[in-house]
Amino acid sequence: MSEAVSPLAPKKQPKMPPIDGVRIATAEAGIKYKSRTDLLVIAFDTGTTAAGVFTRSKCPSAPVELCRQNLSDGSARVLVVNSGNANAFTGKRGRETTRMTAEAAAKAAGCKESEVFLASTGVIGEPLDAGRFTHLLAGMVAKAAPDRWADAGRAIMTTDTYPKYATATVEIDGVPVTINGIAKGAGMIAPDMATMLSFVATDAAIEAHILQDMLAKGTARTFNAVTVDSDTSTSDTLMLFATGAAEKRGAPRISDPKDARLAQFRRALNRILKNLALQVVRDGEGARKQVEVTVTGAKSARSAKRVALSIANSPLVKTAIAGEDANWGRVVMAVGKAGEPAERDLLSIWFGDIRVAFAGERDQAYSEAATSAYMKGDEVAIRVDLGLGRGKATVWTCDLTKEYVAINGDYRS
Amino acid sequence: MSEAVSPLAPKKQPKMPPIDGVRIATAEAGIKYKSRTDLLVIAFDTGTTAAGVFTRSKCPSAPVELCRQNLSDGSARVLVVNSGNANAFTGKRGRETTRMTAEAAAKAAGCKESEVFLASTGVIGEPLDAGRFTHLLAGMVAKAAPDRWADAGRAIMTTDTYPKYATATVEIDGVPVTINGIAKGAGMIAPDMATMLSFVATDAAIEAHILQDMLAKGTARTFNAVTVDSDTSTSDTLMLFATGAAEKRGAPRISDPKDARLAQFRRALNRILKNLALQVVRDGEGARKQVEVTVTGAKSARSAKRVALSIANSPLVKTAIAGEDANWGRVVMAVGKAGEPAERDLLSIWFGDIRVAFAGERDQAYSEAATSAYMKGDEVAIRVDLGLGRGKATVWTCDLTKEYVAINGDYRS
Repeated sequence: MSEAVSPLAPKKQPKMPPIDGVRIATAEAGIKYKSRTDLLVIAFDTGTTAAGVFTRSKCPSAPVELCRQNLSDGSARVLVVNSGNANAFTGKRGRETTRMTAEAAAKAAGCKESEVFLASTGVIGEPLDAGRFTHLLAGMVAKAAPDRWADAGRAIMTTDTYPKYATATVEIDGVPVTINGIAKGAGMIAPDMATMLSFVATDAAIEAHILQDMLAKGTARTFNAVTVDSDTSTSDTLMLFATGAAEKRGAPRISDPKDARLAQFRRALNRILKNLALQVVRDGEGARKQVEVTVTGAKSARSAKRVALSIANSPLVKTAIAGEDANWGRVVMAVGKAGEPAERDLLSIWFGDIRVAFAGERDQAYSEAATSAYMKGDEVAIRVDLGLGRGKATVWTCDLTKEYVAINGDYRS
Repeated sequence: MSEAVSPLAPKKQPKMPPIDGVRIATAEAGIKYKSRTDLLVIAFDTGTTAAGVFTRSKCPSAPVELCRQNLSDGSARVLVVNSGNANAFTGKRGRETTRMTAEAAAKAAGCKESEVFLASTGVIGEPLDAGRFTHLLAGMVAKAAPDRWADAGRAIMTTDTYPKYATATVEIDGVPVTINGIAKGAGMIAPDMATMLSFVATDAAIEAHILQDMLAKGTARTFNAVTVDSDTSTSDTLMLFATGAAEKRGAPRISDPKDARLAQFRRALNRILKNLALQVVRDGEGARKQVEVTVTGAKSARSAKRVALSIANSPLVKTAIAGEDANWGRVVMAVGKAGEPAERDLLSIWFGDIRVAFAGERDQAYSEAATSAYMKGDEVAIRVDLGLGRGKATVWTCDLTKEYVAINGDYRS
């Protein structure tokens, strides 16, 4: 864990309101870190529905496998998250750990094991001893309280330099409902999904299949459009829980995915997912600049996203940005290597509002001084128009600095 | 250009013998660099055949386009290479520069423009003024001499910390023939092809279509199996020239691709290509360690290569190696994200001869001390067995250090 807070950290953190039906507790289990919380329990009232999106890694962690399995009935009562150890590539012992944790959590929360969800983040390949924390779960569930969202964000951090929160209150059919989200993640961040954990909860009453549909759609342009280093974790987990407690205050129970009363909620959820995803990028290991890459004029949206990711993942583009060097030639290189349809002589490139290249060569009006000045800002926007079609996509990343190498050269030791 | 020579540089350089039919000259044209040679001319005797393999970038440089066009008749008389400017993404002016250069080179060498080959390496997007060097070509061809291979290697360097040479003498039908090769490249290195220029010449008499076939096949396991940073250049060029001068000493002219007399030559050519490709990796920007990644047990050779490249291009794997951290969990991550068939619980991983993971979890006999000691060497070999089939592949890369970021954060400025 880095000592210094990212210069791109939010100037101020939002005040996280309680969510009816959600209670939170954290503890210092000493799994890897000392003198900090590394265990989070979130207890949900009966009737809470759940949705999840997980890593597409072919080597997923044991907790990811458990979550996928337990999501099938769409009901959640307790979430247990630890930091410091990912319980990934831990074989049979890893599965034994998730089984023991689920058993203890179900007992603590008085629910079925299939209503337990788990997430672990940290080192891969080290056995995680469930005995380090299962004895804590009953006490944590007992003392869990609604006003602990700030603690929750801190307990799941690994190399993060700041906790990540987002909240919104919107109306469903005139009744206010709240959505809270937390996230962690700072390295091993790439689409499908970002290396991160994120948990979002609401008191709205929404059936599980609708939650799942909204979450999957919302992920494509948020968490699956950010990349720090092109590396995809074994443990990425994004979950959305709806307690339904707002029904008591007159909110409708939503069971039709096309229900127009969901529109405001859906937009707010997407804003929260984007807000959290960008906070992850802005806390990218060693990040000093946020980079937005937009590709327009591609043959398709899918093609645009691939080209955008080729640019956003290029070490040469990212180091140039770290060096505040308006090296748009490397953007050309990254377009060329993407393997997607592109015509050199139709290509145009902008850095912010400055068009640096047009029709396959440097813009006639190119000013090195103006472009260099632009590169000094905290946020750099690169736009590429391929001139071929109507496909477009935006992705976000950060620069690649010496600090990234320093953080990752001795993370485990 | 870095000041310090890579610690992985060859302890001694080979003595490069002359090649009959090949004459070399270099000059200081001052294209970008001061007080160093940046222009290379290689003149070939009449009857020289040529083959080439080029970048697969969708945005190739103007010289790459010219070479592709001129290769169609398979005959070469002069090669002109400049460093300091890639003449890439330079639009009409770029094509005008290659046209003017080809015209001046053809006049200097007394040949057709279609027998001229060009390569440029350096910054992308800056116009390259042919007037800086076309007036030098006639004098260079006139004074070109066979014993200047060492000069040739130096004139094409950009951020390279050492020139790259390889040579071999083998027999074709009992007659000795020589193969010499030079290469440059240190960043923007990734398959299809490595960002690099490499020129190989021989006095053997081999028809162009056979040269092309040998070169293409030889590239797959050499230059197309190395990666420094996953970034593919707009300018990658590998050319092979055969002057045929050995015919005068009784060597046969090879016109059948299956001619058994080529066997020794083919092996020597492949060794030279691999030698040069590894020298490029060992001079990877900021490199402190050479990394060999072998994947076995894949569904196919193609799948094995993709998994190997996923590992070799992973910033987290590469930074761990830089930190001498035996973080094999990141290898698991890189296997998982490759998108190729993989079964977590069949996976085994070796660092050198040390099996660190077996059957989906840490090896029972794993010793952190032994593995950490292994990581301190200059060369690290990672092997992954997927346990699925018989596909295998080996690729080479280097570690990712703070120096890479430093070099690329201010290369252009």
